Amino acid sequence: MSDTMKRVVLKTYCEGLPTPQDFDIEEKPLPEPDDGQFLVRHIWNSVDPGTRSRLSSGDSYAAALKLGQPIDGFNVGEVIVSRNDKYKTGDLVFMAGGWRTHSIQNGKGFIGHLPTRDLPLSYWIGVLGVPGLTAWFGMHRVAELKDNENVLITSAAGPVGATAGQLAKARGCRVVGVAGGPTKCAWLKDEAGFDEVIDYKSVPDLTKALAEALPKGVDVLFDNVGNEMIDRVMGMMRLNGRIVVSGQVADYNLPVSERYGIRNTAPFITHRVRMEGLVVFDDAPAFPEALGAMAGMIAGGKLKIKEDRFEGIESMPEAFCGLFKGENFGRRVIQVGEEPI
Amino acid sequence: MSDTMKRVVLKTYCEGLPTPQDFDIEEKPLPEPDDGQFLVRHIWNSVDPGTRSRLSSGDSYAAALKLGQPIDGFNVGEVIVSRNDKYKTGDLVFMAGGWRTHSIQNGKGFIGHLPTRDLPLSYWIGVLGVPGLTAWFGMHRVAELKDNENVLITSAAGPVGATAGQLAKARGCRVVGVAGGPTKCAWLKDEAGFDEVIDYKSVPDLTKALAEALPKGVDVLFDNVGNEMIDRVMGMMRLNGRIVVSGQVADYNLPVSERYGIRNTAPFITHRVRMEGLVVFDDAPAFPEALGAMAGMIAGGKLKIKEDRFEGIESMPEAFCGLFKGENFGRRVIQVGEEPI
Repeated sequence: MSDTMKRVVLKTYCEGLPTPQDFDIEEKPLPEPDDGQFLVRHIWNSVDPGTRSRLSSGDSYAAALKLGQPIDGFNVGEVIVSRNDKYKTGDLVFMAGGWRTHSIQNGKGFIGHLPTRDLPLSYWIGVLGVPGLTAWFGMHRVAELKDNENVLITSAAGPVGATAGQLAKARGCRVVGVAGGPTKCAWLKDEAGFDEVIDYKSVPDLTKALAEALPKGVDVLFDNVGNEMIDRVMGMMRLNGRIVVSGQVADYNLPVSERYGIRNTAPFITHRVRMEGLVVFDDAPAFPEALGAMAGMIAGGKLKIKEDRFEGIESMPEAFCGLFKGENFGRRVIQVGEEPI
Repeated sequence: MSDTMKRVVLKTYCEGLPTPQDFDIEEKPLPEPDDGQFLVRHIWNSVDPGTRSRLSSGDSYAAALKLGQPIDGFNVGEVIVSRNDKYKTGDLVFMAGGWRTHSIQNGKGFIGHLPTRDLPLSYWIGVLGVPGLTAWFGMHRVAELKDNENVLITSAAGPVGATAGQLAKARGCRVVGVAGGPTKCAWLKDEAGFDEVIDYKSVPDLTKALAEALPKGVDVLFDNVGNEMIDRVMGMMRLNGRIVVSGQVADYNLPVSERYGIRNTAPFITHRVRMEGLVVFDDAPAFPEALGAMAGMIAGGKLKIKEDRFEGIESMPEAFCGLFKGENFGRRVIQVGEEPI
């Protein structure tokens, strides 16, 4: 067992698109758990676009990280030293432990035992982690999705969007996705079962393409992109349409004053549109039910997973920065430790 | 009895702020009701800012009026000739009969008998008409107002805003209003009981004044103004805050592309903000309950009414155009016929 750990910290505040040079890799001695604590060896780490909102200095709405602090992220890991009765050596856990190879935990906050080892471990930071749960509660609690509705998903090839679209397909909805590039679009249509997928990188007129793909309009816009996309779709919203603000990947890198802004707001009144965001931790009491349902869909072949795997904690800055250039195809998961046999 | 009627029609499509020259007054022979119909002599007519959305040509979201068509509005009137069993000569009715001195009705759509003659007739197109009902259902159904919340009302001296604020005061909320000019502000504070009122015409920094008046932030923004105001307040929204899109008076006169736009959308996620518009007719089954409650508040002195009265149908274009310059102080009601003795 190594007697050091590595972690990724913020070196300089990002301006616009983050770059790998904004981060540092540090090596530290392995910490020892106090009473009630345990040491986890990370196996899989995630990079999450929402993290970007904490990487600018100044008056961003989310509290900015301090320079030198480790970056937030989710993990699957194995307990290797424990002074906590509930978490024993060898236990596999999911948690919010940041961009590290090891972390000290106390069993509080977002952490728990993996309910089963029958699924790939990395799924617990993907379809069975925050992205999948965001899709589930965004569709079911926020959008109050109904059978056979007209659903539009943006960033559809990302882990939230791809899951959200398949959840809507399972309800008989017409599901249209927006994604970038032919590979992602083909996977969404052929594997994930989307009815139509629009490649925003090659389509000459995105607004026109959306109108053609959804001739009846949009009951639910599940948006991961931001203001400009919402403004574009607003005129297509049907009576009592819902907009789920799931992510804002196009906005995170722009100062508020430079954003496009939602201008076409008349449909809020004329079509009684409701727009609402979510942070999935609010739904924690209902996680077991959602995870059970999604695990069942995976087992039944009704929920297809695409992962985009990286290796080594040193690759995390690059994996993260690529999220904002549309490089990822599926959930970006980084293997930072070996899986147990 | 006069054997002619007058009506106001759209002469030219409005560009930007409407002007009285955009309208024509026509005189016509009095129509005769067919079987099932009845002729109503209008007593009070309303001018409504939302009407503006139908007065531009082209691709506005609401269906544009055709040139030469009469303008929409609400009325209180008296049945003077009837061939309908439910509406007898002498009955007093509220209805959506447009900018006319007389109209033919068939008893369908938004029309009904006045439940009582104990209140001023004009209230039935104001606090007990669409504006008051918009305030009621906006606060209760859409915002799901709770006791003791922090509430911000824009266009607070208008008939919707003034009612909405008083409904919130009745629930023990801290209520802050934004209005233009010292007279309106003094009335809202001294008569309507608002906790603070900000005069947007004289305050040097509106955003700062809002933050000072609502140090805990905003649970409910009841907005009658539009995008720019919503964007300004977005950073003050509290966790699970609600934005009621009640009116958009600042946006009606601007093409979509020229509007400021809601740019600061991060709080939709970070603070789980929900934004939703309403059209009050959706709540028609619950009107009697709401009207009963508001009539009780008026009788008990808990709901103060401010009206801004005009005389004669010829004054309607001017009364309407002034709405967009903040001229009105309270509900603009136009007396176009004598009240029955």
